[in-house]
Amino acid sequence: MINAGIIGATGYAGQELIRLLYTHPDVNIVYLSSHSYAGKKLSEVYPNFTGLLDMELVSMDAKKMADDCDVIFFALPHGLTADQISEDILNKVKIIDLGADFRLKDKEVYENWYKVEHSRPHFLEESVYGLCELNREKIKKARLVANPGCYTTCSITSLAPLVTGNLIDLSSIIIDAKSGISGAGRSINLPTHFTESNESFKAYGVGTHRHTPEIEQELSRIAGKNIVLSFTPHLIPMNRGILITAYASLSEKTNSEKLLKIYNDFYKNEKFIRMFPAENLPETRFVRNSNFVDIGLKIDPRTNRVIVVGAIDNLIKGAAGQAVQNMNIMFGISEDSGLDIVPTVI
Amino acid sequence: MINAGIIGATGYAGQELIRLLYTHPDVNIVYLSSHSYAGKKLSEVYPNFTGLLDMELVSMDAKKMADDCDVIFFALPHGLTADQISEDILNKVKIIDLGADFRLKDKEVYENWYKVEHSRPHFLEESVYGLCELNREKIKKARLVANPGCYTTCSITSLAPLVTGNLIDLSSIIIDAKSGISGAGRSINLPTHFTESNESFKAYGVGTHRHTPEIEQELSRIAGKNIVLSFTPHLIPMNRGILITAYASLSEKTNSEKLLKIYNDFYKNEKFIRMFPAENLPETRFVRNSNFVDIGLKIDPRTNRVIVVGAIDNLIKGAAGQAVQNMNIMFGISEDSGLDIVPTVI
Amino acid sequence: MINAGIIGATGYAGQELIRLLYTHPDVNIVYLSSHSYAGKKLSEVYPNFTGLLDMELVSMDAKKMADDCDVIFFALPHGLTADQISEDILNKVKIIDLGADFRLKDKEVYENWYKVEHSRPHFLEESVYGLCELNREKIKKARLVANPGCYTTCSITSLAPLVTGNLIDLSSIIIDAKSGISGAGRSINLPTHFTESNESFKAYGVGTHRHTPEIEQELSRIAGKNIVLSFTPHLIPMNRGILITAYASLSEKTNSEKLLKIYNDFYKNEKFIRMFPAENLPETRFVRNSNFVDIGLKIDPRTNRVIVVGAIDNLIKGAAGQAVQNMNIMFGISEDSGLDIVPTVI
Amino acid sequence: MINAGIIGATGYAGQELIRLLYTHPDVNIVYLSSHSYAGKKLSEVYPNFTGLLDMELVSMDAKKMADDCDVIFFALPHGLTADQISEDILNKVKIIDLGADFRLKDKEVYENWYKVEHSRPHFLEESVYGLCELNREKIKKARLVANPGCYTTCSITSLAPLVTGNLIDLSSIIIDAKSGISGAGRSINLPTHFTESNESFKAYGVGTHRHTPEIEQELSRIAGKNIVLSFTPHLIPMNRGILITAYASLSEKTNSEKLLKIYNDFYKNEKFIRMFPAENLPETRFVRNSNFVDIGLKIDPRTNRVIVVGAIDNLIKGAAGQAVQNMNIMFGISEDSGLDIVPTVI
Repeated sequence: MINAGIIGATGYAGQELIRLLYTHPDVNIVYLSSHSYAGKKLSEVYPNFTGLLDMELVSMDAKKMADDCDVIFFALPHGLTADQISEDILNKVKIIDLGADFRLKDKEVYENWYKVEHSRPHFLEESVYGLCELNREKIKKARLVANPGCYTTCSITSLAPLVTGNLIDLSSIIIDAKSGISGAGRSINLPTHFTESNESFKAYGVGTHRHTPEIEQELSRIAGKNIVLSFTPHLIPMNRGILITAYASLSEKTNSEKLLKIYNDFYKNEKFIRMFPAENLPETRFVRNSNFVDIGLKIDPRTNRVIVVGAIDNLIKGAAGQAVQNMNIMFGISEDSGLDIVPTVI
Repeated sequence: MINAGIIGATGYAGQELIRLLYTHPDVNIVYLSSHSYAGKKLSEVYPNFTGLLDMELVSMDAKKMADDCDVIFFALPHGLTADQISEDILNKVKIIDLGADFRLKDKEVYENWYKVEHSRPHFLEESVYGLCELNREKIKKARLVANPGCYTTCSITSLAPLVTGNLIDLSSIIIDAKSGISGAGRSINLPTHFTESNESFKAYGVGTHRHTPEIEQELSRIAGKNIVLSFTPHLIPMNRGILITAYASLSEKTNSEKLLKIYNDFYKNEKFIRMFPAENLPETRFVRNSNFVDIGLKIDPRTNRVIVVGAIDNLIKGAAGQAVQNMNIMFGISEDSGLDIVPTVI
Repeated sequence: MINAGIIGATGYAGQELIRLLYTHPDVNIVYLSSHSYAGKKLSEVYPNFTGLLDMELVSMDAKKMADDCDVIFFALPHGLTADQISEDILNKVKIIDLGADFRLKDKEVYENWYKVEHSRPHFLEESVYGLCELNREKIKKARLVANPGCYTTCSITSLAPLVTGNLIDLSSIIIDAKSGISGAGRSINLPTHFTESNESFKAYGVGTHRHTPEIEQELSRIAGKNIVLSFTPHLIPMNRGILITAYASLSEKTNSEKLLKIYNDFYKNEKFIRMFPAENLPETRFVRNSNFVDIGLKIDPRTNRVIVVGAIDNLIKGAAGQAVQNMNIMFGISEDSGLDIVPTVI
Repeated sequence: MINAGIIGATGYAGQELIRLLYTHPDVNIVYLSSHSYAGKKLSEVYPNFTGLLDMELVSMDAKKMADDCDVIFFALPHGLTADQISEDILNKVKIIDLGADFRLKDKEVYENWYKVEHSRPHFLEESVYGLCELNREKIKKARLVANPGCYTTCSITSLAPLVTGNLIDLSSIIIDAKSGISGAGRSINLPTHFTESNESFKAYGVGTHRHTPEIEQELSRIAGKNIVLSFTPHLIPMNRGILITAYASLSEKTNSEKLLKIYNDFYKNEKFIRMFPAENLPETRFVRNSNFVDIGLKIDPRTNRVIVVGAIDNLIKGAAGQAVQNMNIMFGISEDSGLDIVPTVI
């Protein structure tokens, strides 16, 4: 059994992690830490756990947790996790960081987009970007995994096969992304007050969203060329789910079947990536509560563009589910252990 | 392994059953029948099953299914299941009927509320009302289980402890019930068209809803006295969940603690019934996607009434989950096998 | 033209008032005060007013406003308005208080339910309870009108005809009330965070909601007898609308037609009360954005109870609309001036 | 007074038209025709009109209506309106067609996208494309106005100033559009069944949506050059509102202020177009129930693209409101008569 601790257990990603780890056959939850609710029982904060897990939430003590745990999941706002990471910790326990601190390889890019100084830049090289389908071999050996962002996971997996080869004009990529409101987290504020967000739709962070450099970094790595792209997130009045609609200009005339074959080959052994057949496109409900990425695409011959549509559950494949998948890979157990979930379509 | 067939597989209850049985460790799904979609693959109708279960949907052939299955789940509109039941079928296979045909013991009551003749009244006595927590011993030996209605399950479990003893005036019971729209099923019609039901709230079936006699039958049986009550259902603009608010006049002054103790004793070994502590009340999100019934109560000393609030997921404990629980009991396996689900609070 | 000022202009009731008064043919808006946003322009806080009303929000100065206004609307949390009321103010300007300070005639009842001392109890007798349809004559002459609560308006109008005569057992009244989330106001908190309230349903304030004594006070006055009743509010995951389902035991056998006739007679000249014909019941969408109260009822002969269903828009007839209706009455202009709105059913 | 008739009165656009015309100071509604509900009263189909307008719905008789009306609004599925139009009709009555039959100037383009033959192509040249802000002078003199589509109105107004001059690469335009579900109309079908569309998000009609050639036709006309663009619609789980996010590559470096100035100049006398200041972007709630188009934009210097965000209420400015605006222009009355609505932000 893997002894697991979660730091930041009462945020939405943290809570989802607890849900997934609680039913994971190979995991014991040994610590749940929460800054806001230390001293309370989990079921007082999240009554869905009533009668299931009545563990007390504790204050963060990363050193003690490192002694008692085999893996620690950090689910904290950016900047806070880096402060806790040290050679000593990494020698004792595997770290999966659901935050942004170790995702960007370039310290300056991080500081430029996050507007804070990075306190542990010397771990940036070692950390592995935990997009499981693309970095599996590195993850197996990693001490420190940077779990990707939600928009990022959906965007990169939806576009990765397209930036290999010479299929598209790499400067033409536009990602129009839409997310359910759980992506904004549990911290209360006016824009996510029910009556301010229900029955409305908006764009936000246009040109400035922090997932942009993360998408560019990974797609550039896969393409072997520097990619700069447009990324625009929007808020959908619903709880869960991300759908991205990506546009790119085709280098030459092709058809859906050819592109789908490239995608199917690229992801041929991937259990969590589901390619939709031609003329079929994902909807967020088809992946709800699951670890799947659903991808479909269409070619518009009038404009010679390809339109790729990808969908994930932002809290599962976009956060807690991929974190569990990373843990499974790091500990050499079946990659879908604890993640064998049929999406709840209703 | 239990070989299971589902008739009416593409309605919402049917689809939920497939979801639950697909991950059930002791079950093989061997038949899925669908009147509307026979010949199609399941994943064409429900793309959430893409890559998971690509079984072809077939036309109903109860006799053939009886030969190949250990259990058949019927999830059909009322009237249609009864026609399929025969001594021959029951000798071969266990039947769990998610419809209404065998819930009411009195043929006349059935025909009065459902406005159709009952085609197999001779099985009404044998059939067991499958509210697991109340009829477990009979279910163990049953050939034919009538899986309770959604409102019914929530109402009966929320009130059962209260109608025992001499706690309340049995003529004073009022159940004000509210359900998410999945309770209306998958058949399209104007009232459940998105723009006709979203952002609105209404009562329906006032004084005439068919779950009323079912609730009265079971509570009367438990009370040992004839109970007539008011039941008013409402539609909530959301997908899943039922919450009932029940009112009854107390026979004598008491307090929440005493009543909660009676409830806790009544349900002391029940894994799927969760009593909320004093001053805490259920919300539908705390049971979402799970097989739990959450119950809380409050006494209003001003009116000397008790107000009981119960919540379930209408598609799980109110339909497919309880059907699986019944199967587990009938086959002598762990009652929570395949139902070990942490509610998805978001 | 009536010069109007609003204190508490940026809460939801305040904003709705501005909307209604802006298009009111007989009103000039001369002051908008906001504690939180003084110094900002209205359209910065509520961009729906962009290009329409770019008035600057100011700090509250009731004395100055009394000099410049013909009417002041207070839309403040309870306790704050009372402090501003004085003989001097009332001699200069008509006051319509959308808060709770002057609704309850009995100081002790107020202090008991609101848990604060009343700072101006000497105005309780003079203040007129502004449920327009029931107190029109007093409102005409009032200096200080206490605009009723949202649940209260819906509950009282739905039950008033029933408590006259000897139609029901007055001790049997139960009001099960449901409200859209705008009723909780604009102050952010966890329960009204989008992802904590969307797709869920709950009861709250069971036995303790402050609208209870207000309903009891007015129904008792109408009945001429002391009424104590059960009132249970619930939150619906939608923006606007209240629906109440009220239960009462009939004194003798009757039928829907007779009761509907009593209601129709009671409200025969009321433009804003719409009685639904037998077998038809209100839905909140049928009154959305309008000042109507829709009422329907049904008799359940099995239990000899009447079930009354009432619906309003909580922000209009339940707050700002009724406030405008009160103003119209106080100033002797057409009662529906500025309120001639067809409900937006979609 | 203008005598108005509506054909297709019980669809969503028709119902909105009735709402707007009912309170329009210069209009008498004299006919409401409905194929599905002829013989019923309006308030039986739409109870929001209870007590307001109890007119009986009749079968379509365009000739008779032409005799009695000054204007007829057609709100029918494509193909049906064209059949009704004749020189005789046009000589008697002004026609505003909310459908698609007379929007596209080129018969072949129409037949290519709509897959039906056009029965009255000889009126295509005469008909005026009723985007009021762009074609006002022609509308004044028109006998037959083709009211634009919902996506179209939002897309064209959001991009018109950008395709004038040499600001962008005209081949680079991508419009990612999102609509509330009322845009799908009142006809029931599975995709708009509540539980199939709530809490989910999807793209549809990718590369094939019929509003595409309409947008291209008008933007090409404004640009004076042939424009081919990408248009992708999506469904948002909410009732009302369209938001489009449009992307285009800038011809040369510029900044938001310069572009906003161009927009402000372009729309300087337009009451219903509201430009948002730099760094502010529209949300659909800011225009809800109103006839406004809200537009904001941002420049992304990293990609040298401009991102324009536009929002409308699809049923008002995207259908019934613009139809009324067209009527106002055609009859020489104040353009905002009957449209003086403050958006209902909640």
